[in-house]
Amino acid sequence: MTRVFNFSPGPAALPEPVLRQAADEMLDWHGSGVSVMEMSHRGKEFMSIAAEAQALLRKLLAVPSNYKVLFMQGGALGENAIVPMNMLRGKTAADYIDTGEWSKKSIKEAQKYCQANVAASSKDSGYTRIPPRDSWKLDANAAYVHICANETIGGVEYHFTPDVGNVPLLADMSSNILSRVIDVSKYGLIYGGAQKNIGPAGLTIVIVRDDLIGHALPACPSAFDYKIVSDNDSMYNTPPTYAIYIAGLVFKWIDAQGGVAALEAHNRKKAALLYEALDSTRFYTCPVAREDRSLMNVPFRLPDEKLDEPFLQGAKARGLVQLKGHRSVGGMRASIYNAMPIEGVRALVAYMKEFELSHG
Amino acid sequence: MTRVFNFSPGPAALPEPVLRQAADEMLDWHGSGVSVMEMSHRGKEFMSIAAEAQALLRKLLAVPSNYKVLFMQGGALGENAIVPMNMLRGKTAADYIDTGEWSKKSIKEAQKYCQANVAASSKDSGYTRIPPRDSWKLDANAAYVHICANETIGGVEYHFTPDVGNVPLLADMSSNILSRVIDVSKYGLIYGGAQKNIGPAGLTIVIVRDDLIGHALPACPSAFDYKIVSDNDSMYNTPPTYAIYIAGLVFKWIDAQGGVAALEAHNRKKAALLYEALDSTRFYTCPVAREDRSLMNVPFRLPDEKLDEPFLQGAKARGLVQLKGHRSVGGMRASIYNAMPIEGVRALVAYMKEFELSHG
Repeated sequence: MTRVFNFSPGPAALPEPVLRQAADEMLDWHGSGVSVMEMSHRGKEFMSIAAEAQALLRKLLAVPSNYKVLFMQGGALGENAIVPMNMLRGKTAADYIDTGEWSKKSIKEAQKYCQANVAASSKDSGYTRIPPRDSWKLDANAAYVHICANETIGGVEYHFTPDVGNVPLLADMSSNILSRVIDVSKYGLIYGGAQKNIGPAGLTIVIVRDDLIGHALPACPSAFDYKIVSDNDSMYNTPPTYAIYIAGLVFKWIDAQGGVAALEAHNRKKAALLYEALDSTRFYTCPVAREDRSLMNVPFRLPDEKLDEPFLQGAKARGLVQLKGHRSVGGMRASIYNAMPIEGVRALVAYMKEFELSHG
Repeated sequence: MTRVFNFSPGPAALPEPVLRQAADEMLDWHGSGVSVMEMSHRGKEFMSIAAEAQALLRKLLAVPSNYKVLFMQGGALGENAIVPMNMLRGKTAADYIDTGEWSKKSIKEAQKYCQANVAASSKDSGYTRIPPRDSWKLDANAAYVHICANETIGGVEYHFTPDVGNVPLLADMSSNILSRVIDVSKYGLIYGGAQKNIGPAGLTIVIVRDDLIGHALPACPSAFDYKIVSDNDSMYNTPPTYAIYIAGLVFKWIDAQGGVAALEAHNRKKAALLYEALDSTRFYTCPVAREDRSLMNVPFRLPDEKLDEPFLQGAKARGLVQLKGHRSVGGMRASIYNAMPIEGVRALVAYMKEFELSHG
């Protein structure tokens, strides 16, 4: 067996110790005689797994006690509808900041439920930056302000928490949750699909301030009504039990690495290594404004599109996979989430230099 | 490692060969160097896994070509809302047959979106039977007729496919899909959570006739709009990839057992063994009318509730677990889905006789 360095944007690489433990426990979890996949979600074994996962996530993100942590389904795209269905709270408009593909999807979906105002956009820059906070045209009567904390496709990330006054700040953190220290209390709601930094696809994390819960639109399905989900401890419908178990193992792994602050330091080193390599040559280019570059997703281009395929093939031969950029932007993209070791980034940088020498 | 006989109503026992293969492939699927959990859903490896799973499910259920097979999220409880959101097709009322806890949930949720008429109910019998077809008061203008093909909690199952004329018949088959041969062409739509006969919780199967697609209510989230899901081959949002992989392994296992007809014969033997044991004594009682008894979920009672706890403890000591009945009905319940071997049922029957001798 040869494991590769997997730069997939998501579903993405998981820590190898997590996968080893999952394999070891597949047929018999802790002497229970059953797989976690086979456990009733109402049984004491799985209840303990879910409770531990939630407690660890709360610890890792220092989630204040007046916030609920919900384990849901439907991914960020599902949540793009579920968020306005729950968060309008009698209001008819919400502010959205448009920073790329994922915010565009959020805005389009929200328009089904409310007036989704684009309070700021970096469209004119080709989505290569975050619009400066002082350019945002916010509505004090908006139900909330929505941001995409990290644009997985464009590789643009917020390196500040925008102050939006008394209006709740909502963030799609699918691709950077747990990669850096955040102050949860600055947000009304944080959501994200699990499949980048947390675990398998099919689990959605929602962290929401409890005073914002309880105002779902009548059309909101019960299974996606935050109040119902919260009142039932994320077990109104059968939760994605195995995904929650894997997420719990990942949380333990993060804790063992020293927590989110330690991972952030590590992630900064990894990203710096890659961006320095990109900036030290004219062969590769990164379109993103330096101050808004993502620590998680690093898009870059070769000098000629004809080199893309040879680059990808050479990378694959060296065990560096899933480097192809999203079809909407082209070029390359290296996703370097928590589980990507620095050795993977070093191997990529070494290969990039080698490729430049032979094709430059 | 000692595996037990797991009678959990869901998430439920999975075939041991499936779990072994999943464990073996956890770190490296077919030489790819990555776990299935780590694969991009757009990559050719996972696309092949998803395509094979869908093709096998189509083969096993002989799904006609004018039906779409969708891999979704949210479970049957989510689907209880998603179904009317997609299936009303401009109509304002739908007919529901009330046979127990799960139909009640479907009816209650549908009332958010339409006039959900109870066209027949077995409430008066304590939900111990299926209302005879000739007692149903159907509305020819209803958008659809909804049934719960098997009531997991009450242990009541349809042993006939009701003829409802030209109105589409919709069935929640969460707990009996793939356990018996069905004629898909008699249904407009079949849905079910995966966690009984298919795989891990978090995957929802929808099989829908293609002419019924494309009429979602404006409030239906895009991620749950059958047309959008279908047009994107169940990859509009990131699907629950690992659950689909496990489902595919289960489908292969079913195929290797001889398909659904072979499993049905086996399931009938298992159920007969257990019901004969129940009917051969006055110590145990099964409340369900003989002709409507479920092949999957067998509820039964002991002569005195005080014996419940000793019965469960003795069972556990013999490796027979998860026999406690649902809190809403009490007593015992043995769920004997596809993956429960006949040896498990024999062991349960032997224990029941032993317990009766010592407590009768």
